[in-house]
Amino acid sequence: MGRVTVRRPVLRVAADGSRTRPDTLAAEEPLEIRVDGSPLTVTMRTPGHDVELAHGFLLTEGVIHDRAQLVTARYCDSPGPDGRNTYNVLDVRLAPGVEPPDTSVERNFYTTSSCGVCGKAALDSVRLTTRHSPAGDPLSVDTTTLAGLPDRLRAAQRVFDSTGGLHAAGLFDSAGEPLVVREDVGRHNAVDKVLGWALLAQRVPLAGCVLMVSGRASFELVQKAAMAGVPLLAAVSAPSSLAVDLAAEQGMTLVGFLRGRSMNVYTGAERIVTKDIA
Amino acid sequence: MGRVTVRRPVLRVAADGSRTRPDTLAAEEPLEIRVDGSPLTVTMRTPGHDVELAHGFLLTEGVIHDRAQLVTARYCDSPGPDGRNTYNVLDVRLAPGVEPPDTSVERNFYTTSSCGVCGKAALDSVRLTTRHSPAGDPLSVDTTTLAGLPDRLRAAQRVFDSTGGLHAAGLFDSAGEPLVVREDVGRHNAVDKVLGWALLAQRVPLAGCVLMVSGRASFELVQKAAMAGVPLLAAVSAPSSLAVDLAAEQGMTLVGFLRGRSMNVYTGAERIVTKDIA
Repeated sequence: MGRVTVRRPVLRVAADGSRTRPDTLAAEEPLEIRVDGSPLTVTMRTPGHDVELAHGFLLTEGVIHDRAQLVTARYCDSPGPDGRNTYNVLDVRLAPGVEPPDTSVERNFYTTSSCGVCGKAALDSVRLTTRHSPAGDPLSVDTTTLAGLPDRLRAAQRVFDSTGGLHAAGLFDSAGEPLVVREDVGRHNAVDKVLGWALLAQRVPLAGCVLMVSGRASFELVQKAAMAGVPLLAAVSAPSSLAVDLAAEQGMTLVGFLRGRSMNVYTGAERIVTKDIA
Repeated sequence: MGRVTVRRPVLRVAADGSRTRPDTLAAEEPLEIRVDGSPLTVTMRTPGHDVELAHGFLLTEGVIHDRAQLVTARYCDSPGPDGRNTYNVLDVRLAPGVEPPDTSVERNFYTTSSCGVCGKAALDSVRLTTRHSPAGDPLSVDTTTLAGLPDRLRAAQRVFDSTGGLHAAGLFDSAGEPLVVREDVGRHNAVDKVLGWALLAQRVPLAGCVLMVSGRASFELVQKAAMAGVPLLAAVSAPSSLAVDLAAEQGMTLVGFLRGRSMNVYTGAERIVTKDIA
């Protein structure tokens, strides 16, 4: 589709003067995901790997947990202004017996909880939904390997180099070898694409794997990792309070501020082997 | 409420060894916004300025455009595990005659368009919804002032200093003086809090103002700025393709990579006065 990047003119202003030149931007386009013909959600994403994105989204929303539960995924006709298909509408068919997603606002976690809308209720709902809690996963990673992951993630980012504008998520094994890396204008989409890849490759639950993200670790990213059974989530930037609480509750190792030659281990330190960081 | 930051123990691993110490994290809690008693949305946010957040969200969703259209905003009883109110459910009452928001997926922009799901349709829908297009706003800002904004934004970030984990959004006048700065774990929430503040202060449309954000400029952030009539949006990082397209369509000036002593002007360069950047 060739729409991962787009060229636009830009006026570059710097201390040594200003000039107009072409600039490369990360493409952003809406994707509507339909389930059995009914619109489920619209996300603003970087085109590409849309089928993985849909798988990952449905996995982390608790709709499917096996690739066999999604029978087909195909682009609908959705013509743009020039009459050509935009490839921005993807319809997936669920296997017989798979319950379609509940699209009401009430589906949000707290209805499963005895108490109101609070962090505790959010944690409870993930525990009730996930089939693949990473608790007990015997993964062991040394700090030298972890310290090398940001460079490996960046090295695999093809579009970032040209645009500077993309989030990345990558799966690595315990030796730091990359399994898959995906980029997107949306941080959640990058994670969904990676986890959808894993579901299609029949690697979920992701025992023994490390998920690395380029930005911060929010509740929602830890929740997505938990739904795929990831035992270790590492982020370049800070986690939030609820991200740490959920990682603790799920028995997941959460590493933040993984940059340069240092890192913060917030939960699950038993999986981290401390080595001198080269 | 005292929940803007939270303390947690962390294992800090660095080249000179590892040790456990307390760490300060940005608080993240769910907020449910109800309209006339009906749940509208749940967003994961940093507690505080929730009434501004609700006003900004409803403004940028096209539900209200004047503070008088929202009659009351009050926290519902929503007890946490300890029986105390979590202050995580906010119910707002709309004035008579204000149409409540449509919560169906179909409300997403493209139903207003003759074509399918595409960037063009997304642009069209903002044009049809906003009452305050910034086109024609005579704002003029010099590059020295713009180059100083990131430091001013950071200086106003109280929580970031302690956690390193928060997005910020700030409104500035054409001389670079800050009007308001808000922080949040979510970038959209930080912008909604700022724009909600402006609506409550009866400053919408935000003629003559600059909105500065700490991260990237996505379609959704440009859309929010357009809904509030902001003539100039500046971001520390990269814009996406659709963000640039929407800014051009709306007559908004879009500045990206505003850092150090340089910046990229993607649209609306007529509002930028090029000066030697000190």
